[in-house]
Amino acid sequence: MRQAHTPGNKVFAAEKLLLGRMMESLGNPPLRIALWDGQEISRTDNPSAQCVLIRDRGALMKLIANPEYWLGEMYTAERIAVQGNLVDFLETVYRHLPRSGQGKKSLLAPFNSNTLPKAFRNVRHHYDIGNDFYRLWLDRRMVYTCAYFPDWTMALEDAQIAKMDHICRKLRLKPGETVVEAGCGWGALALHMAMHYASKVRAYNISREQLAFARECVRNEGLDGQVEFIEDDYRNIRGEFDVFVSVGMLEHVGTDQYREFGEVMQRSLKEGGRGLIHCIGRDQPRLMNPWIERHIFPGACPPSLSEMMEIFEPYEFSVLDLENLRLHYAKTLEHWLQRFEDSAGRVAEMFDPAFVRTWRLYLAGAQAAFRSGDMQLFQVLFARSGDNRIPSTRDYQYVA
Amino acid sequence: MRQAHTPGNKVFAAEKLLLGRMMESLGNPPLRIALWDGQEISRTDNPSAQCVLIRDRGALMKLIANPEYWLGEMYTAERIAVQGNLVDFLETVYRHLPRSGQGKKSLLAPFNSNTLPKAFRNVRHHYDIGNDFYRLWLDRRMVYTCAYFPDWTMALEDAQIAKMDHICRKLRLKPGETVVEAGCGWGALALHMAMHYASKVRAYNISREQLAFARECVRNEGLDGQVEFIEDDYRNIRGEFDVFVSVGMLEHVGTDQYREFGEVMQRSLKEGGRGLIHCIGRDQPRLMNPWIERHIFPGACPPSLSEMMEIFEPYEFSVLDLENLRLHYAKTLEHWLQRFEDSAGRVAEMFDPAFVRTWRLYLAGAQAAFRSGDMQLFQVLFARSGDNRIPSTRDYQYVA
Repeated sequence: MRQAHTPGNKVFAAEKLLLGRMMESLGNPPLRIALWDGQEISRTDNPSAQCVLIRDRGALMKLIANPEYWLGEMYTAERIAVQGNLVDFLETVYRHLPRSGQGKKSLLAPFNSNTLPKAFRNVRHHYDIGNDFYRLWLDRRMVYTCAYFPDWTMALEDAQIAKMDHICRKLRLKPGETVVEAGCGWGALALHMAMHYASKVRAYNISREQLAFARECVRNEGLDGQVEFIEDDYRNIRGEFDVFVSVGMLEHVGTDQYREFGEVMQRSLKEGGRGLIHCIGRDQPRLMNPWIERHIFPGACPPSLSEMMEIFEPYEFSVLDLENLRLHYAKTLEHWLQRFEDSAGRVAEMFDPAFVRTWRLYLAGAQAAFRSGDMQLFQVLFARSGDNRIPSTRDYQYVA
Repeated sequence: MRQAHTPGNKVFAAEKLLLGRMMESLGNPPLRIALWDGQEISRTDNPSAQCVLIRDRGALMKLIANPEYWLGEMYTAERIAVQGNLVDFLETVYRHLPRSGQGKKSLLAPFNSNTLPKAFRNVRHHYDIGNDFYRLWLDRRMVYTCAYFPDWTMALEDAQIAKMDHICRKLRLKPGETVVEAGCGWGALALHMAMHYASKVRAYNISREQLAFARECVRNEGLDGQVEFIEDDYRNIRGEFDVFVSVGMLEHVGTDQYREFGEVMQRSLKEGGRGLIHCIGRDQPRLMNPWIERHIFPGACPPSLSEMMEIFEPYEFSVLDLENLRLHYAKTLEHWLQRFEDSAGRVAEMFDPAFVRTWRLYLAGAQAAFRSGDMQLFQVLFARSGDNRIPSTRDYQYVA
């Protein structure tokens, strides 16, 4: 039930005390908090610091109970507002959050297992919202993963191509080689590998909407013979390939499934095979923000590197090269948010204004998370253990 | 007691059966085994396959009981010999070893903890053998870690300089910055950083012999004011620095000490600090070969990446970049073994022929381990979590 916003409805001293405790638990970010009765609580002397406006008592109580979840809910409901730049506000919050929560995950993980039916549901929740929606703010190839900006001023379209080339170069793709892709989104990388590296790609995805788009692209380019899209879970990958690639999917695979993920890589790679995993990660094992987990990415869980190693270490793989592209994801999200805002009116028509606020907060929050180091982007290149046909230096990655 | 080598002393059928079982447990490497009575057991049709000669019954029994330990002992005692190239023989063995032993380590680790007094004993065992000995086969700067060969035909002297530059470039060392080095060997990197990057280096080592050499070099170069060598354990590092670097030491730190190692990094790095860890590693957690552990490196234990993350994940660090230089260590060891063989006569005079055989087997075995993928070489670059003054691409590492 919505509370009245009248200045007459005064904030109690006990409420301010609890709010103070909450701010402490968040590491006392240097923010201003304006309350519905006109009072302000400040953790900074800077008068131009970002200000969060709490419009009613119910919103305050919810925020105090669980700020990581209810900030999002109350922002979407317009019961909390942010004055000033939303990304900067969220970055300030992230930068001050205590680095706790280690070990928490292991307690909850068993209740959050991405079984096959659940994986289908989770994917449909996010990726089957509709191609028309994503087309409004992604690049024309619909690449919904971190781009690569060798030049920081590069256009998003070019940076997505640069990312695909960066991956293909790392993998040293040779004409005629076979590639299996676990989780292919709208198919841009599969298409790119076929068109520019003469690879034969078999790509798996469980999002019907994405595959429809991907198949149409392949037909339009006349590459039907080289690229095969399969509507199925990565766990059902069959066959042996020269290359295993997975971009932006591991973060949707629960850590309790990593051993099986590795087993799929193990049985899918030929001798002399190699692969690349590109995924969102963390500096420490930690739970996903519960609001993002509920509204945006059910079942998502970016791994720390020690967690990620579970896909390699039980099997015959050597990690050759790891690159952290965190700032590239912040830049990518800056582009996406800009495009999203440019189309906010259209999005509101397609869905409703609350949907716009939810997605705005998600895109701004993700940008803030990558900027502040709360999230990382790992690109991990690997090969079969003991294979000596590996490049001795990485110069080759930096030759056009 | 040495057994007779006479052909009359026939090998029993039961002994051959046990030998067969041992070969099975080693993954049936395609080798020939010649026994003291002239009989041969072969696991290959290739008549030019490497052949191991077992000269007496006692040696066979010991080998059967624990091949990973007794091969070394019996080789040193000349009761087992290898016909053909020793490195190739050992590589064949390594390549066929079953990838087992995971988890084993956790059972034994508590009994193998590198407490401070033990760490001192272990270091003196290996590094205080005498500078004159190492001078015979290391480069003139006495760098006793993996070199970096941007050109595979490069001389060892140049490859060691290239390695130091590769590290300094990765770290983006700026003039006047302060560096702390945990485990500095004979001081080459500290000296290099001071001479070529105008850094101020404080370097820790517990090997007295190495430090005497390092201090003399610093005096000779007139760099006393810029480099300080401290005879103490890394756990006693004090102060705050721009850069933390450790090359070839973590493999001597027991995995049960990693949390403390990370704590030292945590308290030693300024805000905006960064660091590099260069160490021998494994694709899976596994125990050190027991013969190497006893005779060459007591207390050594190369970590897998999931184990290594224990020095980063409990603290405020982001892994930015990881490079596997395994083949560079194989190449480095090829140079060392060649130089060692060239000086084998001198070594035998300084010690005895058994010492020569022990070290020959160690250098050949290490080369085989890196060639076969049994061991890895990880170079890990890291920074403070959330620090955005990090390079966006790695091009900068490949500019001379």
